[in-house]
Amino acid sequence: GTYSIAVLPGDGIGPEVIEQAVRVLNVIAQAYGHTFHFQHGLVGLAAIEAEGKAISEETLATCQKSDAILFGAVGSAQHGATVKPEEALFRLRKGLQFFANLRPVRPLDAMLDASSIKADILRGTDLIVVRELTGGLYYGHLEPNVPGKPSEIRETERGYEAIDTLLYSEEEIERILRVAFDTARERRKKVTSVDKANVLSSSVLWRRIAERVAKDYPDVTFENLLVDACAMHLIRQPASFDVIVTENLFGDILTDEASMLAGSMGMLPSASLGTRRTAHGLFGLYEPIHGSAPDIAGQNKANPIAAILTAAMLLRHSLGLKEEAAAIEAAVEQCIEAGYRTVDLREEGKEILGTREMGQRIAER
Amino acid sequence: GTYSIAVLPGDGIGPEVIEQAVRVLNVIAQAYGHTFHFQHGLVGLAAIEAEGKAISEETLATCQKSDAILFGAVGSAQHGATVKPEEALFRLRKGLQFFANLRPVRPLDAMLDASSIKADILRGTDLIVVRELTGGLYYGHLEPNVPGKPSEIRETERGYEAIDTLLYSEEEIERILRVAFDTARERRKKVTSVDKANVLSSSVLWRRIAERVAKDYPDVTFENLLVDACAMHLIRQPASFDVIVTENLFGDILTDEASMLAGSMGMLPSASLGTRRTAHGLFGLYEPIHGSAPDIAGQNKANPIAAILTAAMLLRHSLGLKEEAAAIEAAVEQCIEAGYRTVDLREEGKEILGTREMGQRIAER
Ligand SMILES: CC(C)[C@H](C(=O)O)[C@@H](O)C(=O)O
Ligand SMILES: CC(C)[C@H](C(=O)O)[C@@H](O)C(=O)O
Repeated sequence: GTYSIAVLPGDGIGPEVIEQAVRVLNVIAQAYGHTFHFQHGLVGLAAIEAEGKAISEETLATCQKSDAILFGAVGSAQHGATVKPEEALFRLRKGLQFFANLRPVRPLDAMLDASSIKADILRGTDLIVVRELTGGLYYGHLEPNVPGKPSEIRETERGYEAIDTLLYSEEEIERILRVAFDTARERRKKVTSVDKANVLSSSVLWRRIAERVAKDYPDVTFENLLVDACAMHLIRQPASFDVIVTENLFGDILTDEASMLAGSMGMLPSASLGTRRTAHGLFGLYEPIHGSAPDIAGQNKANPIAAILTAAMLLRHSLGLKEEAAAIEAAVEQCIEAGYRTVDLREEGKEILGTREMGQRIAER
Repeated sequence: GTYSIAVLPGDGIGPEVIEQAVRVLNVIAQAYGHTFHFQHGLVGLAAIEAEGKAISEETLATCQKSDAILFGAVGSAQHGATVKPEEALFRLRKGLQFFANLRPVRPLDAMLDASSIKADILRGTDLIVVRELTGGLYYGHLEPNVPGKPSEIRETERGYEAIDTLLYSEEEIERILRVAFDTARERRKKVTSVDKANVLSSSVLWRRIAERVAKDYPDVTFENLLVDACAMHLIRQPASFDVIVTENLFGDILTDEASMLAGSMGMLPSASLGTRRTAHGLFGLYEPIHGSAPDIAGQNKANPIAAILTAAMLLRHSLGLKEEAAAIEAAVEQCIEAGYRTVDLREEGKEILGTREMGQRIAER
């Protein structure tokens, strides 16, 4: 088939790792007889320099028209300039209503020794965090005028005070929970809903809705877990989880923690989905979970695996190309088994490759 | 000297572990010639049964008059009854204005293998989390009528919605930061302030104040870290931290995560302090960070070490008895080195002791 993919490499190591992801997608196109139209766009510091803002309306429109968006990273540059998340990242996430962020964590057997966690604890870990991405404490400062939902710093008689608002509607909670349960049905059929229901009103509502939605999925095992306990169990018994679903900020913290199970952030992809359908799946935003890492940018040192696995998620969720996605994942696994590593995964006796060389080895398979 | 200690054992394993802590305190009293007046009070389910509420005004008054409060755990019982935190725990924390919660994490060398984290990553870890304990998202539901600070579930035209408010004043932020910097001065002189300043207004104010307070401590190394990155670094390089200071909910999540560094929650004490001074130190609330663990209650299985180390913190911070505190800590370390373990710390080739037997071994030293 013919598909259109918006490509926003961004800053720092973004362009390097996205280049390798695109290379792998081109190999897939050839092997399976697809046509991918890549629409390149600027985002982040590069966009500010060339177009005056971190993402232009034109680039946003290109994204809107595509089947999926492949995003590298934005953040800071070596010379210290930074882009705030609201200037670009949040315009994509919130503007295009990608409310469901999927972050799979599956440490490869050949890499169990790369993690800080003991191999026998890690073995069998294969979990996915379904993080709510457009609500909660996150966007208050972008919407300062919504009544009853402030996020601001203000002066009072006794000095400054600052406020953020954690607001969730029934609809927002229910739709993310349904994504989690639907995801669990295609996996090991277990959902862990994470909240802080012993303290937060929003978590009390969250838990109430989770229990109601769970009734629609009698084939899925369901449990509630407090976020503090989850932060503990993620390290103590990571293999006990299948699908973890939680609100935006808890998801942010827990996925960074969980990334350590896989040895490095450089291994982890993510997909952000909404409700809009394309011809072949769901419209989506795909980004490796790592940042722009300005300290190693341009040195052919970055690990392209997260970006390449991100491309695989794109094929699966937005283009409906499951076999092709699995082929990429298998190629990554083979390269790791063959002993190839990037510097972030440095291990005794393994061969260290540059970004390009790792991309090439994966593409060859 | 003569000191008065309020003792609230609470529910589940609370009474068992507190009994061992009191035993150790009695040994200290004898050895050093002190007099400890223990004022026992009920809290939690036991208090509900006997006095109709989870903590009576009388018990609160006893606490108020003491030099320090030794608290076990409240929560749920085997038969499923539960006490909400606001019924007792929050009345102590918030009611008595214990805004600074200190949670030290120092995996003992002889126990490095008990953690899920690899020993070579753990080695040298000796950190303390200074958690803000009376503000942030926590107490909204207890103060539903504070204008502009809602925590509630409400019905709207399009279904339910729920709201919590994250509010911090300059004063609240500044005083907890000062506790952190003062603590660092007595340790390795490094403070890591943890926030989410790329997203939250309250974190922007937090960071601004942290940077200002840091100027008053030029001898202390200071850094800011985002909470998601902190959740990662805690596992990847725990030995790089000295003092971590953060707001209430971040502190809750990060300390449970950090507890895994020490192998078990059963090893970790905590102290909650305010500004009120006693004759010898600061008035404080002392609790092991573990909960009431109803599943193992009454079976002589619980690990009393957290409670015993909590008693040591009490001696140090509220009674000014530093040497005595150090003696308890040394006795715990010796027992671990001698190979004694409780069931939560089960390790090949170690001798498993019951709660009482472990308490006795420590008391003997
Ligand atoms: C850059 C930052 C705002 C972002 C977030 O908090 O969502 C990042 O940490 C992530 O997880 O994608
Ligand atoms: C019981 C609960 C409300 C409490 C908290 O969140 O503060 C606990 O997790 C803790 O850390 O002491």
